Amino acid sequence: MMSSMSTKNINTHLIEIKDYFKVAISVDCVIFGFNNDELKVLLIESDLKEFKGKWSLLGDIVRSEEELDEAAYRVLKERTGLDNVYMEQVQTFGTINRHPAGRVITVAYYSLVNIEHVELKKSNNELHWHSIKDLHEMAFDHKQILDTCHERLKQQVMVQPVGFNLLPKKFSLRELQNLYEAILDVELDRRNFRKKFLSMDLLMDLNEEEEDVPHRPAKLYKFNFDKYDQRKKRYLGIGF
Amino acid sequence: MMSSMSTKNINTHLIEIKDYFKVAISVDCVIFGFNNDELKVLLIESDLKEFKGKWSLLGDIVRSEEELDEAAYRVLKERTGLDNVYMEQVQTFGTINRHPAGRVITVAYYSLVNIEHVELKKSNNELHWHSIKDLHEMAFDHKQILDTCHERLKQQVMVQPVGFNLLPKKFSLRELQNLYEAILDVELDRRNFRKKFLSMDLLMDLNEEEEDVPHRPAKLYKFNFDKYDQRKKRYLGIGF
Repeated sequence: MMSSMSTKNINTHLIEIKDYFKVAISVDCVIFGFNNDELKVLLIESDLKEFKGKWSLLGDIVRSEEELDEAAYRVLKERTGLDNVYMEQVQTFGTINRHPAGRVITVAYYSLVNIEHVELKKSNNELHWHSIKDLHEMAFDHKQILDTCHERLKQQVMVQPVGFNLLPKKFSLRELQNLYEAILDVELDRRNFRKKFLSMDLLMDLNEEEEDVPHRPAKLYKFNFDKYDQRKKRYLGIGF
Repeated sequence: MMSSMSTKNINTHLIEIKDYFKVAISVDCVIFGFNNDELKVLLIESDLKEFKGKWSLLGDIVRSEEELDEAAYRVLKERTGLDNVYMEQVQTFGTINRHPAGRVITVAYYSLVNIEHVELKKSNNELHWHSIKDLHEMAFDHKQILDTCHERLKQQVMVQPVGFNLLPKKFSLRELQNLYEAILDVELDRRNFRKKFLSMDLLMDLNEEEEDVPHRPAKLYKFNFDKYDQRKKRYLGIGF
């Protein structure tokens, strides 16, 4: 880093270096949830006049004594009361004019939460779970950030059991299929989907059934994370 | 973003906002190559006194009128003469004291190149292809960045045909296996590996053989990217 300057003298260095420290850094959290068979994201109405009335992701400036991940967890905790949830850094966005206040580079995280575990506090009544289907315009470059995180989620649910973070601990195969259909935005063949999942041999049949449902109660399952972890260590699956 | 400040008055806002613009942003490129059956990375000796004699990734400060990706491509082009190569943003590192000059957030990219296509210029004689196996200490947090990019590469080669960027256009199955073994740092069973790859039906048999090799010449193959792209559009493969 800064090695392209190695031919210049030290004073030029110092002036140039000072010039570089003019960027601000923020985090933006794409908090995904799932209910009513829809993939949702937690949004807030922007309070910047430039984006009046537009939806914005939840984010904040990273403080001078704060790590990036720490800032993202702080935003999540402040807004949802949750910690200890699935969160992953996805991509950093730094388009030159993306923020009206100056050059603000933002590190985007996505988080997968069970909507039922989120209690939106009264002071948070401007917060809203929004179906990702109906979102077109957003503040800043937040639509692009959302799309990028959604794309990452699509890739991840195909190869890793991250989607279960969006479901209750006990779920039916129908709920699981609805989740996959909502994330991937496709219709899946019911028989193939069940066959596929049951053949992985990672769902535990709980010998329980759904209660209080307006249709024939379905069997409930749990994902076997222990078995998955053990198998992952042994198995080397190349496939594309 | 900045919405946590919405209860403060505008002057407090402006002072605080000014305080935030004190970060610098850099890019660091993990440029992977493959030869002599080893996964290598292109490094330079650090010229900062704090890291004298330690190996450093190739990177630079992002200029005020420069996009992040643009900066990464510039570094790659300046150092290797290459453009139009596989490059992917991997992760952003921002530990508070990672850089002696102040808070420098760095966006890490990895790039996969064919070593034979890289002509290290005379002015670049401090550049060196280093086997990743022998790397322990590096300048800054560059070992952590390298490890993170290597981990991403391990994941990617299992689910996407990115590894072929590291090979010549025509390759033998042995070369392909050597590449996978070098990236994944494991020994693979020869029969299973071949069966696996041939069953994907994405390797084109070129009806050619290796030349000038000190062993029995092997058949040469090419990866069928067109077929892969077509299939990807149709196929929905969940598996973990």
